[in-house]
Amino acid sequence: MPMLPAETRMVFSVFPSHTNHYHTLFGGTAMAWMDQAAFICGTRWCRTKVVTVHSSEISFKQPVPEGSIAEVVAWISATGRTSMTIPVEMYVELMDRDERILACRGEFVLVAMGADGRPTAVPARDPDPREELPPAECRTQRLHEVVDDGI
Amino acid sequence: MPMLPAETRMVFSVFPSHTNHYHTLFGGTAMAWMDQAAFICGTRWCRTKVVTVHSSEISFKQPVPEGSIAEVVAWISATGRTSMTIPVEMYVELMDRDERILACRGEFVLVAMGADGRPTAVPARDPDPREELPPAECRTQRLHEVVDDGI
Amino acid sequence: MPMLPAETRMVFSVFPSHTNHYHTLFGGTAMAWMDQAAFICGTRWCRTKVVTVHSSEISFKQPVPEGSIAEVVAWISATGRTSMTIPVEMYVELMDRDERILACRGEFVLVAMGADGRPTAVPARDPDPREELPPAECRTQRLHEVVDDGI
Amino acid sequence: MPMLPAETRMVFSVFPSHTNHYHTLFGGTAMAWMDQAAFICGTRWCRTKVVTVHSSEISFKQPVPEGSIAEVVAWISATGRTSMTIPVEMYVELMDRDERILACRGEFVLVAMGADGRPTAVPARDPDPREELPPAECRTQRLHEVVDDGI
Amino acid sequence: MPMLPAETRMVFSVFPSHTNHYHTLFGGTAMAWMDQAAFICGTRWCRTKVVTVHSSEISFKQPVPEGSIAEVVAWISATGRTSMTIPVEMYVELMDRDERILACRGEFVLVAMGADGRPTAVPARDPDPREELPPAECRTQRLHEVVDDGI
Amino acid sequence: MPMLPAETRMVFSVFPSHTNHYHTLFGGTAMAWMDQAAFICGTRWCRTKVVTVHSSEISFKQPVPEGSIAEVVAWISATGRTSMTIPVEMYVELMDRDERILACRGEFVLVAMGADGRPTAVPARDPDPREELPPAECRTQRLHEVVDDGI
Repeated sequence: MPMLPAETRMVFSVFPSHTNHYHTLFGGTAMAWMDQAAFICGTRWCRTKVVTVHSSEISFKQPVPEGSIAEVVAWISATGRTSMTIPVEMYVELMDRDERILACRGEFVLVAMGADGRPTAVPARDPDPREELPPAECRTQRLHEVVDDGI
Repeated sequence: MPMLPAETRMVFSVFPSHTNHYHTLFGGTAMAWMDQAAFICGTRWCRTKVVTVHSSEISFKQPVPEGSIAEVVAWISATGRTSMTIPVEMYVELMDRDERILACRGEFVLVAMGADGRPTAVPARDPDPREELPPAECRTQRLHEVVDDGI
Repeated sequence: MPMLPAETRMVFSVFPSHTNHYHTLFGGTAMAWMDQAAFICGTRWCRTKVVTVHSSEISFKQPVPEGSIAEVVAWISATGRTSMTIPVEMYVELMDRDERILACRGEFVLVAMGADGRPTAVPARDPDPREELPPAECRTQRLHEVVDDGI
Repeated sequence: MPMLPAETRMVFSVFPSHTNHYHTLFGGTAMAWMDQAAFICGTRWCRTKVVTVHSSEISFKQPVPEGSIAEVVAWISATGRTSMTIPVEMYVELMDRDERILACRGEFVLVAMGADGRPTAVPARDPDPREELPPAECRTQRLHEVVDDGI
Repeated sequence: MPMLPAETRMVFSVFPSHTNHYHTLFGGTAMAWMDQAAFICGTRWCRTKVVTVHSSEISFKQPVPEGSIAEVVAWISATGRTSMTIPVEMYVELMDRDERILACRGEFVLVAMGADGRPTAVPARDPDPREELPPAECRTQRLHEVVDDGI
Repeated sequence: MPMLPAETRMVFSVFPSHTNHYHTLFGGTAMAWMDQAAFICGTRWCRTKVVTVHSSEISFKQPVPEGSIAEVVAWISATGRTSMTIPVEMYVELMDRDERILACRGEFVLVAMGADGRPTAVPARDPDPREELPPAECRTQRLHEVVDDGI
C-alpha cells in the first residue's frame, strides 16, 4: 500500500529568482510548482512513470509578495483506470503573520505509463466521499479564510 | 498605437534543465513559458503593469522530447475594461523535421494595474471576428495538423 | 501561537537540473534544500527575519539517483534566547518503491533578527523531551530503516 | 524546404534572475540568449545537429533595466558548404513605451554535424542581396533609431 | 602528477538569483558553492569519479550582501586510502573595498569511486605539515582579518 | 592598491544544467561565464560599478563534454581613462586527465561608472609589455598545447 497516497506537501520561500520585476511571485512559477506537486503525488500513488495530460483552470486571487512562504498541497481525489485526478492548492503565509490563505487552486490529471510507453492501470482510490475533501488542516483553513481574507 | 499588439513569439530549445527525469519537457516548464508569453503580450498591449488573474484548462497532447524546439505564440483576442484575454499556443518541432504541431493551447486573463495598485483601463481591441483567429501562419499550421499529426 | 511550529516539509523530484554529471543528486543541491527548509521552519516559529549562523556536520549515506523523490523535514528542537536549533532530515524514495530511507541529517542554528539588525528574542520552545524527537512518522520510518536499508 | 528558415524570434521579460546587482540585464545573459537564438535558427535551417564555432564582436550600447522586454531576432544571412552565418539582433522595449531600439547585434557561425561527428553539408542560401538585410520590420526600426535614440 | 592538486578557486558575483528576500547571499547557495569547489578539487586530485560523503560543521560569520564578490578556495589537506579531506573557505570582498575577509570555512570528505561503483584508491598526499595550512595568500589574509574585521 | 588586479579565476564542473541536448557545454553558457569573469575582474580593478560595453569575437575550438572541468581566467591587459581591456580564456580539463587545453578566448571592454551614472576614471595599468601576457601558468599551458592538442 502506498505510504502517503493522499497528500504531498512542498513549501517554498519566495526569493528574487521566483519573481517578476514587480517583485511578486511570477504566475508561471506558481503553475510549475503546482505541476511538480501533482507529479510527485501521482508518482507516489502508482509508483510508475506518470505524465500530465490536463490541468484545470486556475484563478490567482492576489499577488504573492517576495519573502512570502508558499505551501503547495496535492492529493489524489479520484482515479480512473489509468488516470489520477489530483487537486493542488497553494497557500500563502506572509513572513510575519501566523495565518495563511488559499492563493490558488487547480486540478491536474496525470496518466500512468508502462514500460511499453502505453497507459497502464493505477491502484483504485476508494470513492469515499470524505476522501474527496482536502486534508483536515486545509478544511479548517478555509473557515479561517471566511473570517480573515486579508494578506 | 501599440507596435505588435496581436502577437508575441518565444522560441525555446528543450535542454536538460527544462526536462523531468524521463527527459521530456516538464509540464510545469511549459506552463511557465506560456504564462511568460501572455505576460509580455499583455504588457505590450496596455504598456502598464499587468497581473495574471486566470488561466484556462490546458491539455497536453503528447510528451515533448529533449532536443525539440518549442515555439510559444500569444496574442490578444479580446479586451474588457481592465482585462485582456490572451490565447497562448505551444508548437513543437522535432529537431530533424520541418513540420510542427500544436502541443498545447491555453487562454490567460491578465488585468492592467495602475500606479495606485488598482485595475486600470486597457485600450479596446476591436472585436473584428477575423482578429479572434490566431495569426495566419498558425491557421495554416492547423490545416497541416489534420494531415500530419505524428511527432 | 504559531500554526505549524514543529514541522516543515518540502518534497522534490530529482530532475536533471539538480544532478551532477553522474546523474545523481549533487551534494550541494541537497545542502541548499536543507538550509531552505530550516529557513522556512525558523521563519514560521518566530515570524521575523532569520539568518543561518551554523550548520552541523552532515553525512551523505548513499548517492540519490535522478528520478528519486526527496522529502526534506525540518522542525524546531530547541530554542535559546534569540536562536533556534532546527534538525533537518532528507528522506529518499525511489520512484517505483513504497519505502523511503533516511539519506542524510543535519542540524542548523538560525538567529532571529529585529528591524534594527540585531538579534531579537524568539518564542521559547517547551523542552518537553518528547518534542525533541522527530515527528511520529519519521520515528516509524527509522524502524523501517533497520529492516530495509537498501535503496 | 525549411518552414521558417530566415527568422527566429525569442522574447524575454527581464526578471531579477537575469540581472546583475545593479538590476540591469547581465551582459552574459544577453550573450547566452543570442547564442540560443542562433542555435535554434541554425537547427531549423539544416535540421541536423549544429555547433557554434564563432561569435563576432558585440557592442552593448546601453544598460537594459529590469522589467524591460528584450526581443532577440536571428536569421540566416549566408551559407558555406557546412556552415551558416547567422546575424542576431537584440531589441529592447521599455515596459511603458511603444518604441524599441537596437541594444546589440552580433553574428554567429554554426557548423552542421552529421551522425558521424563530422561537418556535413547544409542547404545553400541563395545570395540574394536583399536577403542579407534584416527582416523588414527591423529595417524600419533602424530608421526609428535615428530619430529616437533614447531609452 | 596532478597539475593543480592543492588548490581550486571559484569566484562569484552575488546576483539577485543567489539571494534570499533580504538580498543577502542565501546560506544554502554558499553551501552548494563550497561543495562544488570540493567536488572539482577532489576530481582533479584523483582523476576519477568522486562522491561527497561528509561535510563538517560550518559557521556563517555574517550576512553577505548582494553585489559582493565571493571567492571559494578548496585544497587537499589529507588523504586516506580511498578518501580525500578537502577544506573549503569562502572569502568575501565588498564591491568597493580592496580587503576581503573569511566568511565561512568547512571541510568536506570525498571518496573516489571506480568503474565498478566501489571505492578506489587515491594518490597519497604527503603529510607535510606545511601543506595542511591554507595557501600562502589565505594565511596572509587571516592576519588582515585580525586588524580589519568589518564588512 | 588592488589586491588581485591581474587575475580572476572561476572554475565550473559541466553539469546537465549547463549543456544543450547533445550533452556538451552550451556556447551561450560559456559566453555568460566569460562575461562574469570579466565583470568580477573589472570590479576588482576599479572598485566601482562597471558595465560591459564590448566583447571581441570568440572562436570555439571544440565541444566541451558534460562532466568536464572548465576554468575561466580573466586579467586586466590595458586601461584607458574610464575603460579596462580584459582578456578571458577558458581552459578545459577532461575529468580523467591531467592536461588542460585552451577551449576559447575573448576580450571584453568594461567601463567604470560613477555614482552619477557617467563614466569615471579607472586606475592606470602600467603598460609593461610583459604584463600584457597572460599569467605565467597560462603561458606554460600554451606550450603544452602545441604538444598535446587532443581532448
